[in-house]
Amino acid sequence: MQNTETKHIKIANPDHAIMPLIAQRWSPRAFDGRQVEKEKLQRIFEAARWSPSSSNEQPWRFILGFKGDETYEKIFSTLVEFNQLWAGSAPVLFLAIAKTSSAKSPGKENKSALYDLGQAMAYLTLQAMHEGLYVHQMGGFDTLKAAELFALPHDFKVVTANTIGYQGNPETLHPNLKGMETSARERKPLNELVFSETIGQPANFL
Amino acid sequence: MQNTETKHIKIANPDHAIMPLIAQRWSPRAFDGRQVEKEKLQRIFEAARWSPSSSNEQPWRFILGFKGDETYEKIFSTLVEFNQLWAGSAPVLFLAIAKTSSAKSPGKENKSALYDLGQAMAYLTLQAMHEGLYVHQMGGFDTLKAAELFALPHDFKVVTANTIGYQGNPETLHPNLKGMETSARERKPLNELVFSETIGQPANFL
Repeated sequence: MQNTETKHIKIANPDHAIMPLIAQRWSPRAFDGRQVEKEKLQRIFEAARWSPSSSNEQPWRFILGFKGDETYEKIFSTLVEFNQLWAGSAPVLFLAIAKTSSAKSPGKENKSALYDLGQAMAYLTLQAMHEGLYVHQMGGFDTLKAAELFALPHDFKVVTANTIGYQGNPETLHPNLKGMETSARERKPLNELVFSETIGQPANFL
Repeated sequence: MQNTETKHIKIANPDHAIMPLIAQRWSPRAFDGRQVEKEKLQRIFEAARWSPSSSNEQPWRFILGFKGDETYEKIFSTLVEFNQLWAGSAPVLFLAIAKTSSAKSPGKENKSALYDLGQAMAYLTLQAMHEGLYVHQMGGFDTLKAAELFALPHDFKVVTANTIGYQGNPETLHPNLKGMETSARERKPLNELVFSETIGQPANFL
């Protein structure tokens, strides 16, 4: 299923040999205008559906628009100017929303909602990559305006605005953005992230 | 790399054909006592490292113990009684911790920390699955006691306690837990999760 024609512009440089799907994933700003196949979108959101969640609350909700429709325009209108410079090239825009109240314990907050929404987004993103598609998550948008535009209930918290599409040509980007599209990917070393005994003491399997 | 000998006790029943890796993932309670190879753990945490995060803050931290060491015992001591019934069969226990202060904007909260930790946990979980290993995340533990036991700074929030290991035999479980180990996996239908125009209006690609 994976699109073998994709040229991997920005592959990770891992210290340990992780799955190619994870190494290849990144967040492009240049998208190809080509429409995303309906069947691929079904599988992408199906992957989110099978993510784990605390008490199986499944606190993930999504609102999705296709370029040219009203939902897309509404989501686009909430983006900060920087993101509007590039996100309009993507054929799909969607909001990732956390349901912050518990369904199983009425009246209680679901404290895992954000964490579990993040997990669902990761499953969705890796299924997209498996389909040869890229997801770019944005925090730079007006979350309250987005909630208003879609008349969301008070317990629906908009967390990210996201693009889905095929990778485009970096040369099509605004001049201010071209450099970011090809710069090296950077991460903290594992020994600053995984500890034993106490924070700061690298785990002994590293 | 994927362990083809694993018997998939509890595979998902998806409506759309998602990646086998995602369909096979679940959260067992019966673990085989077999130790987890160091190289596999390296790759599993390396996968978390390459997860995306808001402004590349990488707010994920982990504290990991092996059965028999002090870190493992400390983590185990924070679990609620229900989780103590089964989690001790896993060879590895670790805490997933969100750094809630921003490194890039000192003094500011990183509002994406929980969401991004969730993403990193998903990458880690799928890399584990790729290695033939299972992760079970727990919310049922004393997060404040865990923070105390490891003297965490105030901006390190313990979110989940987790097991990693090879799948075990459900028959080894406490009688109260056996049924859960083989019951069908359930999820809300996609048309209750993915909308267009407004919440409640299923997206038109479904």
